[in-house]
Amino acid sequence: MGSSIGRLFRVTTWGESHGPAIGAVVEGCPPGVALSEADLQVDLDRRRPGQSALTTQRKEGDLVRIEAGVFEGTTTGAPISLRIENRDANPGAYEHLRDLFRPSHADFTYHEKYRGHRDWRGGGRSSARETAARVAAGAVARKLLADRWGVEVVAWVDQVADVRGPDVDVAAVCRAAVDAHAVRCPDAAAAQAMTEAIEAARRDKDTVGGIVGCVARGVPAGWGDPVFDKLEADLAKACLSIPAAKGFESGAGFQGVGLRGSDHNDAFEPDGEGGVRTTTNRSGGIQGGISNGMPVVFRVAFKPVATHFQMQHTVDAKGRATTFQARGRHDPCVLPRATPVVEAAALLTLADHALRQRANLGGMPRSR
Amino acid sequence: MGSSIGRLFRVTTWGESHGPAIGAVVEGCPPGVALSEADLQVDLDRRRPGQSALTTQRKEGDLVRIEAGVFEGTTTGAPISLRIENRDANPGAYEHLRDLFRPSHADFTYHEKYRGHRDWRGGGRSSARETAARVAAGAVARKLLADRWGVEVVAWVDQVADVRGPDVDVAAVCRAAVDAHAVRCPDAAAAQAMTEAIEAARRDKDTVGGIVGCVARGVPAGWGDPVFDKLEADLAKACLSIPAAKGFESGAGFQGVGLRGSDHNDAFEPDGEGGVRTTTNRSGGIQGGISNGMPVVFRVAFKPVATHFQMQHTVDAKGRATTFQARGRHDPCVLPRATPVVEAAALLTLADHALRQRANLGGMPRSR
Amino acid sequence: MGSSIGRLFRVTTWGESHGPAIGAVVEGCPPGVALSEADLQVDLDRRRPGQSALTTQRKEGDLVRIEAGVFEGTTTGAPISLRIENRDANPGAYEHLRDLFRPSHADFTYHEKYRGHRDWRGGGRSSARETAARVAAGAVARKLLADRWGVEVVAWVDQVADVRGPDVDVAAVCRAAVDAHAVRCPDAAAAQAMTEAIEAARRDKDTVGGIVGCVARGVPAGWGDPVFDKLEADLAKACLSIPAAKGFESGAGFQGVGLRGSDHNDAFEPDGEGGVRTTTNRSGGIQGGISNGMPVVFRVAFKPVATHFQMQHTVDAKGRATTFQARGRHDPCVLPRATPVVEAAALLTLADHALRQRANLGGMPRSR
Amino acid sequence: MGSSIGRLFRVTTWGESHGPAIGAVVEGCPPGVALSEADLQVDLDRRRPGQSALTTQRKEGDLVRIEAGVFEGTTTGAPISLRIENRDANPGAYEHLRDLFRPSHADFTYHEKYRGHRDWRGGGRSSARETAARVAAGAVARKLLADRWGVEVVAWVDQVADVRGPDVDVAAVCRAAVDAHAVRCPDAAAAQAMTEAIEAARRDKDTVGGIVGCVARGVPAGWGDPVFDKLEADLAKACLSIPAAKGFESGAGFQGVGLRGSDHNDAFEPDGEGGVRTTTNRSGGIQGGISNGMPVVFRVAFKPVATHFQMQHTVDAKGRATTFQARGRHDPCVLPRATPVVEAAALLTLADHALRQRANLGGMPRSR
Repeated sequence: MGSSIGRLFRVTTWGESHGPAIGAVVEGCPPGVALSEADLQVDLDRRRPGQSALTTQRKEGDLVRIEAGVFEGTTTGAPISLRIENRDANPGAYEHLRDLFRPSHADFTYHEKYRGHRDWRGGGRSSARETAARVAAGAVARKLLADRWGVEVVAWVDQVADVRGPDVDVAAVCRAAVDAHAVRCPDAAAAQAMTEAIEAARRDKDTVGGIVGCVARGVPAGWGDPVFDKLEADLAKACLSIPAAKGFESGAGFQGVGLRGSDHNDAFEPDGEGGVRTTTNRSGGIQGGISNGMPVVFRVAFKPVATHFQMQHTVDAKGRATTFQARGRHDPCVLPRATPVVEAAALLTLADHALRQRANLGGMPRSR
Repeated sequence: MGSSIGRLFRVTTWGESHGPAIGAVVEGCPPGVALSEADLQVDLDRRRPGQSALTTQRKEGDLVRIEAGVFEGTTTGAPISLRIENRDANPGAYEHLRDLFRPSHADFTYHEKYRGHRDWRGGGRSSARETAARVAAGAVARKLLADRWGVEVVAWVDQVADVRGPDVDVAAVCRAAVDAHAVRCPDAAAAQAMTEAIEAARRDKDTVGGIVGCVARGVPAGWGDPVFDKLEADLAKACLSIPAAKGFESGAGFQGVGLRGSDHNDAFEPDGEGGVRTTTNRSGGIQGGISNGMPVVFRVAFKPVATHFQMQHTVDAKGRATTFQARGRHDPCVLPRATPVVEAAALLTLADHALRQRANLGGMPRSR
Repeated sequence: MGSSIGRLFRVTTWGESHGPAIGAVVEGCPPGVALSEADLQVDLDRRRPGQSALTTQRKEGDLVRIEAGVFEGTTTGAPISLRIENRDANPGAYEHLRDLFRPSHADFTYHEKYRGHRDWRGGGRSSARETAARVAAGAVARKLLADRWGVEVVAWVDQVADVRGPDVDVAAVCRAAVDAHAVRCPDAAAAQAMTEAIEAARRDKDTVGGIVGCVARGVPAGWGDPVFDKLEADLAKACLSIPAAKGFESGAGFQGVGLRGSDHNDAFEPDGEGGVRTTTNRSGGIQGGISNGMPVVFRVAFKPVATHFQMQHTVDAKGRATTFQARGRHDPCVLPRATPVVEAAALLTLADHALRQRANLGGMPRSR
Repeated sequence: MGSSIGRLFRVTTWGESHGPAIGAVVEGCPPGVALSEADLQVDLDRRRPGQSALTTQRKEGDLVRIEAGVFEGTTTGAPISLRIENRDANPGAYEHLRDLFRPSHADFTYHEKYRGHRDWRGGGRSSARETAARVAAGAVARKLLADRWGVEVVAWVDQVADVRGPDVDVAAVCRAAVDAHAVRCPDAAAAQAMTEAIEAARRDKDTVGGIVGCVARGVPAGWGDPVFDKLEADLAKACLSIPAAKGFESGAGFQGVGLRGSDHNDAFEPDGEGGVRTTTNRSGGIQGGISNGMPVVFRVAFKPVATHFQMQHTVDAKGRATTFQARGRHDPCVLPRATPVVEAAALLTLADHALRQRANLGGMPRSR
């Protein structure tokens, strides 16, 4: 259980880090969306390791193949099957992890949940490698959202360790600005400071965490369902399902709790084109769980990478105290590679709610 | 769509603030759990208005009736239907809201989502009154979790406005300590300061927000599903579905991003009874999305109440600029009443994952 | 589990035969559908007991109340809560069933499934009284389907015991014709023979079964999803979930297996208005699991009523052999009252697939 | 939508007849089940074409690969990904079907549903080739059910055209007896007559339909959920989702409607070992939608194969009248190959309900 997300635009991922392949099946994508492997590869290339000196040099390649659901260049409405071969698998390198629980990894909890049955090679199913599959699926959602609704999703690195960048202009930030620096913070000075924080941690055989910010522009008013499936509830779920994510906030979020209502509320005003907008956007584009037409803005906190290179205390599979010393290739900071994963979380959630609202309203005319 | 939560322990709520009644249907509760209306009323009484000078004096009563699913004092496995009559409804008092969008409320987004079809009386379906239904359903989950697994969930007010309480001892905090002060912060000095902050806001015709902390003790290792249905992902979703909630963090959360991996990781050690524990709990009891046997700890941020009593700019249903001045009974701070709602979010999520893990493992013996 | 049906138009029923009430929650009905209690009562009155000398004289009344989801006469998109009080409950009359399993009823299987926890009063949750809730929900679907798509669903009694009526003209059969005879077969001669078969069974303290036929007219081409959620698969599920239903067939069904392909295939031809029709309809309006624009036609087999008034051998709750002699009010034949229940099964299934197709296509233009 | 089935044991299939591959993802299979590709291949080999002179000579091979979810020979609880390459694809052979709707196939309905976007090569997604994926998934369910509950599922051909075999002994019928004749009817004389009926149809360039019977032995009492998810409702859905299936009946089914209640009821009696059994099994092992411990027995009707080799009238994609003459390799009768597909439908349904009942009861002791 748990490898699927979405009700109408529904994605199921499968695969282990060191099995033959990983993949995703995307159900519910409407017909008629132009889609190629190249569309997906762009996003995958932003997630894959080895992009810069900041990230692990493991060469995964991450070449995605569409095996079903696309015919003559467009989606057919049938399930879209995406498959990525694991080309750099070296299971032998993980033999020492067979009977040992790495601290703050999922080794112990998988062992308990599945009564000892787990693929311990490089994290197996719990490896962040799984996120390649959801990034590929998110790229399908990106195409759908862009084609049908003109929605655009951009994420960036907002904080690394204790280095926080300046407020990003959510109306303007774009992929080019984000990718201008390897650390994926669009502000040059902050990017430099973040890079130094990562390098310092690497020198100390240590790791750092951070925060990814994200905006979705072009989301029309009316997406999101009341009560339990609020748009920010589903965004939070999608984001907290990313490995190492430990926090989510929408709009002013945790910072907003110190404000008074009269300072926090977003006043409505006519937008000059017959519509309505808010003068501020502390709600992050979502009110009562439903989009209000303003940019949807949220942030995701990532804990420092669990795999550092200092000695750690732990126990083995028999519950006996032991120590653990990591080896191999590991990112000291996942934030740059996490940005496309956060985008995918937003894209999958929005695509699902776009279809849900289409089911709700169909061609019903506007009331105003 | 959107009024149901859970896959196996599944709750659907219904009802508008000023309709004849609200309610919840709880599907999937196993048979044989002793359950009475009094069990549910305890939790409802902690959520209802009028408990103290800090909260609105509206008398909702919130008497819950079990109309199905319980026979001769125990659950039967059939859907449990819970119904709460709306006794203090006074729809006329809301006539002035018919054609006006209150800032930072759901009036506008519901109007857009449903093309003008909405019950505008006191928020209708978007009213926080709906949370009474989920608190009642959460009380069913509380009984199930206590009886079958010995799980206990306690929430408290951690912050009001900019007044943050001292760190709570999650191993010991109990309902009695939380309820010792009307503001539901277990620390006397902080409770006093929080109360003053609320009173100050009320005097200023304004409102405040805050943070609720929550712990679940007794959760065994192995609850939560990998990938998308991680325990903290589902907790985040349940919490962000609470009206006015804008942030969620698990364990060290947003604070943890400033730590290095070597400081953040939780070392495993033998627990002296044949099991395993961690020496710290920055993971908040969840690793790889699955409980590790330590207390599950998280926090939820609530924005300041949207209804304050100062004049506000907004638009009417035709999109024309206008002003809005709230009247009637409204809490200047929802935090005290939000604690049982956060508990309900945790209880519903945990009950669902308890049954999911039972489906996964059945009577499979431990591997260690 | 198991008390909900539908993915987008989703209905959950609750309640026991002799509890205070039964009901249904309808999620996902779009906003703007005119709906009143009278709309629902029409269908409920066709299902309730005591309509004619052919059916039990128990006076259930079955007055339905809408408690949520409708405001100022139209649906709002919020869950519609329907509640029917049990007014004729007489639990004492069932005391003798507490520790005894009636043959071919659900007493034994519920006892086993729920480890002895069950409401044994009049069948409790397994009573056919539950179908009142789904008929009420089906009436909501009927309004939605009629208003938005012009779909019309009519069921009739096709066979009672071994009396089979002549082939019904599925293009013309209407409720008035069906209700012209108490047995709900639109053919006068067959209705008379069926009535006599029922009376003969009653005189013999016995019961009979039969077959209900059903047609949905106006279903556009394109409803139903490929592979597992084929339209006839979902219709079959909905119909087989009706108490006493033991068979389902679509189009030529079981009779069609004796035909050759060249006799069974439905040739396509232009319909003279720019569209396509089939010259015959052995497919029952469904091909590859998707509606083709022709009338959707199917039949449902009902076993003879399990409660007859002859002595029966059975066992008690301790597994000891005993005998059982039914008493009280029971239909010798459920077929007349089953017709609105079969209609409800079709209506709920079609409403769900209507919304699914709307999510799939939205306003996408026709390709031809 | 529509390519997934099951709530806890959940299968999603993907792939087109002439794409690079087809496959299935199996979610929710518990850990610790010994599973190899050979286990799956056995069932696939019974479904593949070219097994006998009776079936098409197309060589699909149908070699299945497990790409995830199995580690060191046992399931891990992670999604099991199954992939079957399409080795005999010859898309060019179908060019003449691009703009034409074959009668009683899914060409027209897919065209309407997806606004002209469809893979027309050999039926694409609507091809019965998809059933290879569900047979592979069903083989996983078979292993789980056998290992944990000792459940055994056997299907056979009960009727071909108008040749009906004698009643099969459901307590004894086994795969060896079924496979003793190529037509998969365990009765030698009937098998011979069926074979002749198929050969006669082939000689006439025509096709035939038939009926598959199926039994599940060892199903304990208590599987199946009340109300909508009755065991026979879910079995009916799974079976009606098989291409060409047009009818389903459980126990006495359509035949039973002619019986009186006193003849149809199954009396309970002590089984001599402390349990309970019924003296007859007209209920087909299911009462009130829940298994009663007797063999679960049902039948599925298949229409004659739509592709015969006589000239047919139809329309093209522009709605103009035309004719169609099939060519290529096609079975005159799918019944022999349908038996493993019906078994898969039963296996998937039963595995799901097995886990559902485990979630419901866990280790709760028997009440008797």
